[in-house]
Amino acid sequence: MTLIPKSHPRAKSLLIREKLVSGFDKGLVAKEGLLAQGRGEAFDYLLGEKTTKAAKHAIKAAAAQLLQAQRPVISINGNIAALCPKEVIKLSKQIKAKLEVNLFYSNEKRKQAIIKTLKKNGAKEILGTNSANSTRLPGIDSARRVVDKNGIFVADVVVVPLEDGDRTMALRNAGKTVITFDLNPLSRTSQTANITIVDNVTRAIELLIAESKRLAKKKEKSLEKIITNFDNKKNLTENVIQIKNNLTRRARIA
Amino acid sequence: MTLIPKSHPRAKSLLIREKLVSGFDKGLVAKEGLLAQGRGEAFDYLLGEKTTKAAKHAIKAAAAQLLQAQRPVISINGNIAALCPKEVIKLSKQIKAKLEVNLFYSNEKRKQAIIKTLKKNGAKEILGTNSANSTRLPGIDSARRVVDKNGIFVADVVVVPLEDGDRTMALRNAGKTVITFDLNPLSRTSQTANITIVDNVTRAIELLIAESKRLAKKKEKSLEKIITNFDNKKNLTENVIQIKNNLTRRARIA
Repeated sequence: MTLIPKSHPRAKSLLIREKLVSGFDKGLVAKEGLLAQGRGEAFDYLLGEKTTKAAKHAIKAAAAQLLQAQRPVISINGNIAALCPKEVIKLSKQIKAKLEVNLFYSNEKRKQAIIKTLKKNGAKEILGTNSANSTRLPGIDSARRVVDKNGIFVADVVVVPLEDGDRTMALRNAGKTVITFDLNPLSRTSQTANITIVDNVTRAIELLIAESKRLAKKKEKSLEKIITNFDNKKNLTENVIQIKNNLTRRARIA
Repeated sequence: MTLIPKSHPRAKSLLIREKLVSGFDKGLVAKEGLLAQGRGEAFDYLLGEKTTKAAKHAIKAAAAQLLQAQRPVISINGNIAALCPKEVIKLSKQIKAKLEVNLFYSNEKRKQAIIKTLKKNGAKEILGTNSANSTRLPGIDSARRVVDKNGIFVADVVVVPLEDGDRTMALRNAGKTVITFDLNPLSRTSQTANITIVDNVTRAIELLIAESKRLAKKKEKSLEKIITNFDNKKNLTENVIQIKNNLTRRARIA
């Protein structure tokens, strides 16, 4: 454990950082996952480290989409398991989604550490753990195309928080509706997904759980309306504009 | 070693990432250093992953400042040692600066790994390695204020690539002229330094070496003119505007 002075103006961000570092020490997070978190930190900083109005819209659309899904699956990687294991399980119960461990940098030991963390936090069924059930998505590099034939392979809606662009594209090509959390509104994942929540997953997941609970009482028709009224490209542009406005304010330029 | 598909559109950035990961494996880079690199990647992406016109001006001013210095020191941390050990030594020879190992997250084993790498790359004298020569900068948390009494403590100009805001401020308070490399034009380090080179250090350091060589032939007076004509605040604003323009272009918004 390193020493973070409380006086440091970025102490909050440094504490989240330590959470990832701790996840790394427990074998959940890949080294590349620490770098990915750093990129996220930068975009979060530019977004003002709060949930934007646009992100709230995306969260609402995601909740409606998940409630309408027949076979929703939430894909879990090391960073998610380190940052919000409890919340991701709570979400899976709320929307009756399966959990599938699916890693960008595949590693059996790390996978086992992630499974252990999920179980400790109350997960019952975890897919992506039995190689007898492995199958492949077409159109993606071999090392990263493995999915569970009872999970992502047959899913209609897949939540892929903090995902790589190649895999997001492969999921779309396979006909899946993709929901992602990505702090970079310009990333390929953001641009490729059906619904992109441009927010820090540690903030947004709680809001998604609450929204799913609220919308669960709504009729099928009003859920459909929320989904069809949502425009992901427009939403992403709103987030880019937010970043631009924040840059202007911070740099005190016209 | 992980597998990076050549087809990946961010292969170049992923390869630099692997360089840091390799530096981590060799014990040079702290876990927090991987996260810091990630933040840098995000800002580099927003800057267009090339040296801006503003950065070129800052490099010129930095070269002039270093050539005018009486006791210049280059501060070395793990990320710098992993990313560009050869170049930093080449720069120190060009401008007759001392090298001082100075870590944010202090760790003796890591310090030794950094010293080993610097020596392997041709460094003769390395300060910050003998605790008998340690002294303290005032006005900064205890763990991070240690400097070498023959190095940073008596320096007039200090180059601190990829530095923390607290330490940059402590150096300024101690009367030092501070030159930094920082990809975030809004960071406290960027805003506090006398000259901020908003560029990827792996690109900018070669340019700084070349510029130092070129300006070494100039008279004292023209170096002074370059320094007094340089306005760091204005330069940082130019970099923010560049980011804003890149965001507009990429998001195809007005």
